[in-house]
Amino acid sequence: MWEEFSSNNIILLTNAGVTTMTSDLNTKVKAASKAAIVLASMNTDEKNKALESMAKALDAKRSSIIQANAQDIDNAMKLKNDGLISQALVDRLKVDDNKIDGMIAGILDVVDLEDPTGKTLESIEIAEGTFLYKVSCPIGLIGVVFESRPDVVPQIMSLCLKSGNSIVFKGGSEAIHSNKIIFDILIEAIEHSSKVPAECFNLLESREEVMDLLSEDDYIDLVIPRGSNEFVKFIQDNTRVPVLGHADGVCHVYVDEMADLDKAYKVCFDSKVQYPAVCNAMETLLVNKHIAPKFLPKMVEMYKTANVEIRCDDRSYDIAKDIQGLNLKKVEEKDWNTEYNDLILSIKVIDSLDEAVSHINTHGSHHTDSIVTEDNDNKRRFVSLVDSSSTIINASTRFADGYRYGKGAEVGISTNKIHARGPVGMEGLVIYKYVLVGDGDTVADFEDDGCKKYTHKNVLKEFNI
Amino acid sequence: MWEEFSSNNIILLTNAGVTTMTSDLNTKVKAASKAAIVLASMNTDEKNKALESMAKALDAKRSSIIQANAQDIDNAMKLKNDGLISQALVDRLKVDDNKIDGMIAGILDVVDLEDPTGKTLESIEIAEGTFLYKVSCPIGLIGVVFESRPDVVPQIMSLCLKSGNSIVFKGGSEAIHSNKIIFDILIEAIEHSSKVPAECFNLLESREEVMDLLSEDDYIDLVIPRGSNEFVKFIQDNTRVPVLGHADGVCHVYVDEMADLDKAYKVCFDSKVQYPAVCNAMETLLVNKHIAPKFLPKMVEMYKTANVEIRCDDRSYDIAKDIQGLNLKKVEEKDWNTEYNDLILSIKVIDSLDEAVSHINTHGSHHTDSIVTEDNDNKRRFVSLVDSSSTIINASTRFADGYRYGKGAEVGISTNKIHARGPVGMEGLVIYKYVLVGDGDTVADFEDDGCKKYTHKNVLKEFNI
Repeated sequence: MWEEFSSNNIILLTNAGVTTMTSDLNTKVKAASKAAIVLASMNTDEKNKALESMAKALDAKRSSIIQANAQDIDNAMKLKNDGLISQALVDRLKVDDNKIDGMIAGILDVVDLEDPTGKTLESIEIAEGTFLYKVSCPIGLIGVVFESRPDVVPQIMSLCLKSGNSIVFKGGSEAIHSNKIIFDILIEAIEHSSKVPAECFNLLESREEVMDLLSEDDYIDLVIPRGSNEFVKFIQDNTRVPVLGHADGVCHVYVDEMADLDKAYKVCFDSKVQYPAVCNAMETLLVNKHIAPKFLPKMVEMYKTANVEIRCDDRSYDIAKDIQGLNLKKVEEKDWNTEYNDLILSIKVIDSLDEAVSHINTHGSHHTDSIVTEDNDNKRRFVSLVDSSSTIINASTRFADGYRYGKGAEVGISTNKIHARGPVGMEGLVIYKYVLVGDGDTVADFEDDGCKKYTHKNVLKEFNI
Repeated sequence: MWEEFSSNNIILLTNAGVTTMTSDLNTKVKAASKAAIVLASMNTDEKNKALESMAKALDAKRSSIIQANAQDIDNAMKLKNDGLISQALVDRLKVDDNKIDGMIAGILDVVDLEDPTGKTLESIEIAEGTFLYKVSCPIGLIGVVFESRPDVVPQIMSLCLKSGNSIVFKGGSEAIHSNKIIFDILIEAIEHSSKVPAECFNLLESREEVMDLLSEDDYIDLVIPRGSNEFVKFIQDNTRVPVLGHADGVCHVYVDEMADLDKAYKVCFDSKVQYPAVCNAMETLLVNKHIAPKFLPKMVEMYKTANVEIRCDDRSYDIAKDIQGLNLKKVEEKDWNTEYNDLILSIKVIDSLDEAVSHINTHGSHHTDSIVTEDNDNKRRFVSLVDSSSTIINASTRFADGYRYGKGAEVGISTNKIHARGPVGMEGLVIYKYVLVGDGDTVADFEDDGCKKYTHKNVLKEFNI
């Protein structure tokens, strides 16, 4: 999962406005789209060879990466001293040997992941001797726009390469020197070690090019924005290309009447406090009225020790108001729709599970919502009625992420209702094509007075010629 | 597959222009979106009960359907006499006992189809005792805009009901009386036989509402347009809701140097002539230069017997020009991108398989393309390099359709590169959600100094509480 910090990008982008098409980008995009077909036809060994050489090249060129990164850090420190960016952002920019180790390990993880393309997903005999296969294949050309972490460059390049997709991507301007040197090292490694076309990979450097990128809907098949909520919304509003991702992360935990309180304390504390700056942290705690008087006092005490600001509805306010030294406010209507990304929590006491479901479906962002209960009927109802990409029983909302879900690497978390939903790994970078293998078959032979009949039998047969 | 005839709808729609939101539609859409959650939680038996009662109701009310349809036919005949619509359109409007039998059989087919929701697609143990499930679920609220065939009403309603989706749909104004009576009969049957909420189904009657429908991107998850190319393009250009479908169907057959000529004659004739008015008919025939002199004369003679107009490039013109009585023209550049939907065919002689692939990827519509060859390398290269939703070996392009692909029913043919591609059945009406089942698990326990470790083991386990 990516974390959402600055919304610098959005300001810079809107300043740039809609520029006229740079023919330079259009040429790149066309070439990348064409090269995608060649990459799509490459086998796993060839792709893994390129990936391994990428990992080796990063290892061999550590000093030049760290040197280029120092320039970005220098510039960032100036911006920080002028109060324009935070220390957190500067920290995230920093590349050291440990970070490079992480990049290398990430690429080697992708080598080990199964190739998601060329898999026979379904096979059917449509008539005697005539077979139809549904075979997974790359999507084509992916656009990625991300914020300032240089480690995204090898991650995205390796995921796209392994899944056979071309890519046009743009990182944060704060990381421009780091991104450029890492990209150049990786491209050189690919070119020298494999037949993967270099045109498949394109790093954009100017902000203006992002607007152009978004207008290339004839060539780009999918855009993945990684950044702040405002940034993702801006991308969604300014392109006809399908966007994979999510803007808001307003996640809930519902503590049911039938909750085991020990589990509830652990889950509610972790969901809010373990890392509040991210999209899968809880923003609103819903508590059943029958258990609230027993549960809330100790829970709120726990939040107090972690310096969480509490925003209560009337009923929870009554319970919390006597706790000394608590940072307590009355909740406002807009809080229910707010992603704080901070140590702030709204609390609401509700009458029933159905009210909890209705609150979540109305005010939530269809991202990740959790129930704490021992009652199986309530578990079932919650999971079935809450319309979110992840529904969680007796565990923290913070689990909703690609690494924790066992995907190895993640391209994003999607709240879309089509294509890919929830934490998305390489499975979100592939689609399928149908391959029909006949022997001179005509549709006329199957029509009214034809000599042939459809059999439509499922068979277990790999597509293989 | 639906056939593409009139583009009446588009004219009517653009005349309507962008109207202000009718709060009436907004209310319906909100209610449908809310009711979708209830429908999504219903089991297969309950849904099948509703479907069976729909089939029975159509059978019981045949005469009122035929009576309402007579009004539409009367109106259509007047338009036809004024030269505004074709006889083909009038024929397609007509509902008789046979058509009603077909509607009933269609609904009962959907009863027999497997429920695509609630299936455990993947299951993984993420840590000892903690399981993650990927479970299929309905998308939510689907918008369907279709042309004037009343049999689409029961087909779409039954597919959406079985897959657990709410629907807002609008048929052609020519079929308004037929659509309305069929819809009313089906809704009454659903209400009297099951707990499926009637709010899940909404038939729009005025053209203005279609523009409003397209602007409801906060509630509608997917739009499926079924109609002419212009109509689909209009929908794509006027909504932020994802659109499932295709505009053009420019399909090719490539006759390779290594083709079996008998198969080539059959496949090329069927692809063009068997039913030329539809999206999966061939528009351009590509012939390898080494086989063209041998193959083309007889092939063109066959097309002549079927009154196919031939538009040739220079090399094929030289071969075809001496055939007496042939309707022969020189091809123009724009022909390569044209879907004729008629007995017209462009022919090009090309130098190599790679040139064929490049022509198809450049001028085609990524719909359906076929190769005729006996050479396995060439089969593999064609299938791997042609970027289309269906690639076909030694068979007619006309096979690319839901019924022939064994899907039972079809919601459309998609040339999208995400979500669903090619002929789409109920699998295109579902997505999935992740369900994590823990026991008070916190992410903190798995962090640096935590006591737990991720196991990430694939397991075969159905989601079941």
